[in-house]
Amino acid sequence: MPFADRLADAVRRKGPLCVGLDPRWESLPTAIRGRHYGRPPLDQAARAIADFCLKVMHLVGPFAGIVKPQAAFFELLGPAGMDALKSVMLLARDSGFVTILDAKRGDIATTATAYADAAFAGAQIDRGRSVVWDADALTINPYLGRDAVEPFLTAAKAADRGVFVLVRTSNPGAGLFQDLVCDGKPVYRHVAEAVAAWNAPTVGGCGLGDVGAVVGATHPAELRELRAAMPDVWLLVPGYGAQGGTAADVKAAYRPDGLGAVVNSSRGVTFPFHPDDPDWEAKVSAAAAKAAAELRP
Amino acid sequence: MPFADRLADAVRRKGPLCVGLDPRWESLPTAIRGRHYGRPPLDQAARAIADFCLKVMHLVGPFAGIVKPQAAFFELLGPAGMDALKSVMLLARDSGFVTILDAKRGDIATTATAYADAAFAGAQIDRGRSVVWDADALTINPYLGRDAVEPFLTAAKAADRGVFVLVRTSNPGAGLFQDLVCDGKPVYRHVAEAVAAWNAPTVGGCGLGDVGAVVGATHPAELRELRAAMPDVWLLVPGYGAQGGTAADVKAAYRPDGLGAVVNSSRGVTFPFHPDDPDWEAKVSAAAAKAAAELRP
Repeated sequence: MPFADRLADAVRRKGPLCVGLDPRWESLPTAIRGRHYGRPPLDQAARAIADFCLKVMHLVGPFAGIVKPQAAFFELLGPAGMDALKSVMLLARDSGFVTILDAKRGDIATTATAYADAAFAGAQIDRGRSVVWDADALTINPYLGRDAVEPFLTAAKAADRGVFVLVRTSNPGAGLFQDLVCDGKPVYRHVAEAVAAWNAPTVGGCGLGDVGAVVGATHPAELRELRAAMPDVWLLVPGYGAQGGTAADVKAAYRPDGLGAVVNSSRGVTFPFHPDDPDWEAKVSAAAAKAAAELRP
Repeated sequence: MPFADRLADAVRRKGPLCVGLDPRWESLPTAIRGRHYGRPPLDQAARAIADFCLKVMHLVGPFAGIVKPQAAFFELLGPAGMDALKSVMLLARDSGFVTILDAKRGDIATTATAYADAAFAGAQIDRGRSVVWDADALTINPYLGRDAVEPFLTAAKAADRGVFVLVRTSNPGAGLFQDLVCDGKPVYRHVAEAVAAWNAPTVGGCGLGDVGAVVGATHPAELRELRAAMPDVWLLVPGYGAQGGTAADVKAAYRPDGLGAVVNSSRGVTFPFHPDDPDWEAKVSAAAAKAAAELRP
């Protein structure tokens, strides 16, 4: 099944909530950290973040069909962290989540293909393929241009996967280059038009395609504008919750059929507790339930 | 010593050649591949690419003071590949190379800091720091804007490291967004001006700073233009050799004092042989010697 249709199925079943997995050693429940002392520090922290993510996926499963591991927090722990990422991706897939690997990769030609193969089909070694992250989708950065995006599209298409291209991000300084006005419209609109064109040939049964766009929730007017400019493009919307976007803000990203957007919450859902709180699991469940209810189209 | 001064020292000693390490299993010498069969494929390939990179560093050492491992080819092999990257970075540092980790990372806030800590100071776990890649410099992508770049600058400054910001890349489709004209100049010039401003407070004894720019060799006119626009910024110049830029083209990136540019060659220096060639080592040495001679200011 094409990526877009698998995503539509997840959103129809559980709603648009995507749980961002941004695990940090110092924020983990003390109970989980306590289990892993006595190993080399990177190994200790990597095992603890994997444990935490596995537990969080179990807790949020009733309320969300999509998870988004943030590659940086795994890379921070080196090879042991990448082992943790592999475990998390594997369990997410086995648990039926659609997985978006948030790595914002961007490079050209065979280098882009290497990142895409790591994310999707796996590494070709002699006559076999070895899967690596096995993600349903990957976030990518468009700055390097056409031939930095196309290898990801080719690899995604061959493996029935998707990409989300950064268009308009949710951070306060995002406008420095994204808002420069060229030919009467900001750079991010030029990127949006390229995304719409890349997406068009991939539109599947659900009426949306496999080439999505990242559009921050902290700019509701732009969210509305970009929803209209890319009517058949899936939007991945960060910035809801801890970053300040409200449920009302993000609903501008939904299409009339209730599809079209995946709304990410990371800290708001996964860290609504103090590390010493013995009830941290109940708080994660409650935060996921609340977010899922708020976001219902 | 600040990054810029360490880089100047390397260029004064050995010239501006930077050897790009983009190792691919299928291109490795048959003799190296043959040593590693019998393991799981990702592990087999990861050990082989590490072996190859260690050998290449030994061969090019007389001709180059800078190496640039390409993160994608290590990530392609998953956690085992990241182990190989760690070995390569460690040996590069021990061998006295200045290391540029070519990962083109780009994210915001604490996520950017996680990538930067992985590259530079290491992961903070309780009261200790564990180094991860321990790179002298990291390539970064500016599309996400001010607060996507500043965490890298802060982390680099704290650890005496540097960054190279993508400004104008060497790929055929680079112009799609980089060449859009805003306020009378292309986007890449806006990025160049931001880089010059970020770099200004870091200018060290050598007259250059710690915030460099990636500018492709396949656009010599732009290379000249950007050299003039960013007189105290180190330029990292890809595209020389296999990608079509000539030694004459890239010399536009040098300042009158012979400093100011690092010129990368990946395939041209590291893969000038057929995998079955028993003389592959001599060919790598000869390719490095030739590139170093051509590039001398």
